[in-house]
Amino acid sequence: MEPDEALARLRALGFADDDAQRLFAHFADAEARGKPSHGFSRVEWLETLELDVAARPERVEAEPGFERWHGRGAVGYLVLDAVVRAQFADPPGAARIVVCEDTFPTGMLGGWVRRLAEGGFVAALTATSPARLAHPGGGPKLIGTTPLAIGIPSSAGDPIVTDVSMGRVTYGDVLAGLAAPEELVPFGGEHAHKAFALGLGLQLLVQALLRAPGFGAVLLVARPESDPVPALRAQAAGVRLPGDGGGIRDEVRGLAADAGDREEMRIIRGQMADLKPPLSD
Amino acid sequence: MEPDEALARLRALGFADDDAQRLFAHFADAEARGKPSHGFSRVEWLETLELDVAARPERVEAEPGFERWHGRGAVGYLVLDAVVRAQFADPPGAARIVVCEDTFPTGMLGGWVRRLAEGGFVAALTATSPARLAHPGGGPKLIGTTPLAIGIPSSAGDPIVTDVSMGRVTYGDVLAGLAAPEELVPFGGEHAHKAFALGLGLQLLVQALLRAPGFGAVLLVARPESDPVPALRAQAAGVRLPGDGGGIRDEVRGLAADAGDREEMRIIRGQMADLKPPLSD
Repeated sequence: MEPDEALARLRALGFADDDAQRLFAHFADAEARGKPSHGFSRVEWLETLELDVAARPERVEAEPGFERWHGRGAVGYLVLDAVVRAQFADPPGAARIVVCEDTFPTGMLGGWVRRLAEGGFVAALTATSPARLAHPGGGPKLIGTTPLAIGIPSSAGDPIVTDVSMGRVTYGDVLAGLAAPEELVPFGGEHAHKAFALGLGLQLLVQALLRAPGFGAVLLVARPESDPVPALRAQAAGVRLPGDGGGIRDEVRGLAADAGDREEMRIIRGQMADLKPPLSD
Repeated sequence: MEPDEALARLRALGFADDDAQRLFAHFADAEARGKPSHGFSRVEWLETLELDVAARPERVEAEPGFERWHGRGAVGYLVLDAVVRAQFADPPGAARIVVCEDTFPTGMLGGWVRRLAEGGFVAALTATSPARLAHPGGGPKLIGTTPLAIGIPSSAGDPIVTDVSMGRVTYGDVLAGLAAPEELVPFGGEHAHKAFALGLGLQLLVQALLRAPGFGAVLLVARPESDPVPALRAQAAGVRLPGDGGGIRDEVRGLAADAGDREEMRIIRGQMADLKPPLSD
């Protein structure tokens, strides 16, 4: 799907223009980062759902160091988008845990923590999703792919963003025919029990903090006290670090340099501005 | 090393009796859970360090949802022991982040979150340690084995505790000659970049929240709103879940049933009482 078509189809689903732009920005980010299974293909998938495009997520609890949000039927991407914007509008003290109820799907988790890290916050995010992974020893599928994304701001250059799901392949890859269903197992080969345990622990952590059954997310957002990234990059001496690749704007510039993609990329590039952390809600 | 010898040697190092008991309880727990590299062998290792046995960890900051502790030169195990006891003495509201400066070594992280989970709290804990893992693509050793431990209380039976380090083997195994140094790489084989990314993200998360260089830990402790473990166990239908095995008391009972181990196990069993979450500091 081409970017302009994706945006048009999001609008055709009935989303208000700012929501369509928010969804588009998240999908375009995933495309630019080489994660097409979280990209424009999701528009087609959204078209198969019964969406309440007018639903608005709500912050139902706020105390120092803690917030609880409820999706209120909004698509999960827009819940997390609202949560991210709210952190900038009302920043945490030292740290804050944000529990998101009724929040699905959550997309490329690295995208949300990257926005927080670009705005100067340390962030970690995990989320539940349908059970697709069994224990490597056998038995029923017990856990989702349960990614953990972590974003760390840097005084020099891009943040470091890690975003690791516990599956050997993604469910999106299976849907897209890029991987066979039997490849959707915990990663790690002979040590797959480790990835399974990580996913199980993270899934139960989210589930235990939710009030109601359903899918959700837990976010940690905190103010950094130190700036470890520049020293790490110096020590890494050129080793490509997770989430790196010159930053999304460089990637977009690279893609846009291909004349055939110019029109398409003009649109994405225009949307990139929306990926900058907004300073207020 | 036999349990009674371990306790005697801890006392001989000059630790006050309650601290010697706390260290012993942690090491005995590791032994009983089949993690001898975090067990009594650590007494021998402590004997090689310059320890300040009179040092006392200090809570240097406390605000709703956040605490910062400083080891003040105390051995890391005793910092985390003090932090765990403090959570019971002064429980969090909905959730609390605890940053621990100058906290090393931290031992079997699952032991600390298990105590919190047995006392009814959801807990997640990670910690930094010397760099031992390189990027799977090569280059210098950039990260420690950086475990992530998660403990989830249950209304029926034992908590679920996951405790996963990002190394294919442990550094303790290398020290003990159970694994070759070249086996100390991120786990995951062809997907080892995932374990490396998880460890890198967790390490930077801790480092970014510390004020001063050095090793430290970050703990999330929260009140559960739901009770997902019984349903998971029912669904798992007998699959052995991480951290399971019938609970430490069952394991100890099993070991103690071996007549040859009876005297040794009598001592461990006596110490098990100390593993129950204290109700006050």
